[in-house]
Amino acid sequence: MGKVYFDMSMSLDGFVTGPNEGVGNPLGDDGERLHDWMFDSRTAADAEVIDELYGGTGALLIGKRNFDVGVDPWGDPPPFRMPVFVITHERREPLPRKGGTTYSFETDGLEAALDKAKSAAGDKDVGVWGGAGIAREYLTAGLLDEFQIHLIPVLLGDGLRLFEHMDSGPIELETIRVIEAPRATHLRFKVLR
Amino acid sequence: MGKVYFDMSMSLDGFVTGPNEGVGNPLGDDGERLHDWMFDSRTAADAEVIDELYGGTGALLIGKRNFDVGVDPWGDPPPFRMPVFVITHERREPLPRKGGTTYSFETDGLEAALDKAKSAAGDKDVGVWGGAGIAREYLTAGLLDEFQIHLIPVLLGDGLRLFEHMDSGPIELETIRVIEAPRATHLRFKVLR
Repeated sequence: MGKVYFDMSMSLDGFVTGPNEGVGNPLGDDGERLHDWMFDSRTAADAEVIDELYGGTGALLIGKRNFDVGVDPWGDPPPFRMPVFVITHERREPLPRKGGTTYSFETDGLEAALDKAKSAAGDKDVGVWGGAGIAREYLTAGLLDEFQIHLIPVLLGDGLRLFEHMDSGPIELETIRVIEAPRATHLRFKVLR
Repeated sequence: MGKVYFDMSMSLDGFVTGPNEGVGNPLGDDGERLHDWMFDSRTAADAEVIDELYGGTGALLIGKRNFDVGVDPWGDPPPFRMPVFVITHERREPLPRKGGTTYSFETDGLEAALDKAKSAAGDKDVGVWGGAGIAREYLTAGLLDEFQIHLIPVLLGDGLRLFEHMDSGPIELETIRVIEAPRATHLRFKVLR
């Protein structure tokens, strides 16, 4: 049985997008900056982090907004190559894509969607890959074992914050791994109950 | 000639105090949590970081609010053992303490205070040690060479944020050192102009 985690790239000042995020501008203004480490300037350490994510994860959970802004840029085949469960209020038929990705739309809440993702993942992990809102909901609902932050050495000044409006009271974490690379410090935390 | 830096302990969600910070509650509710790494649970790595800070720094700059909430808890002798320049709008005579700390009150703005601190520091560094507001002002004014964040594995949910209301546009950083310890990940950044 795998673990349940989220994984997000975050600027040092807490943003997971630049300002003016939306359809057509999924990462916000200058938000690509937060994902540089995955692409052009990827180092061996960064590549290992990515391989570990794709290799260890058997199913994904994402928010509806993340799906809406992402579905076009992700293309066909999407990069995931595993089942993707979209948390939404709208019923909709599953959307199969090439390469092993099927988007299915889950309307029965966080826990029901998680149960389906766990079944689909088998022995592998379930990853909450975005956006900020759904990651936060799983965290504050106490449904996460771990999360990983790719901390980006930039202060964006504006955008969507990952950690805000958290009314759950303080949440203690344990730092379980730190990998240093020039474009991102990869930090893994265990969520302590 | 040393460098000019700030140094702050920050929760993973960006807070440098807990909620309800003020005189009598200088770190806010549960805010001591952010400084655990310096005290009870200090490791050898943490101790080296502290020794480096005290050993390498020749003068400090702090905000008036930081002074007001800190002056009593810091006691006499204060832990600094170096000149401390307090940025304020109120003229006031210097306040000498035991052990090499003198608080002097600087009313001519950030740059004038920095010039005095640089003179006092000689070959050593000038440290902006708090609070969040004055650290941010020096950063956005382009007067800092570096800063250090002690990133604490806790989500506080509320308090004073270090990085907010930054209207300066994105600020690129270079991660120049990462030290991992259980109670804090010590991150040093160079501010790129």
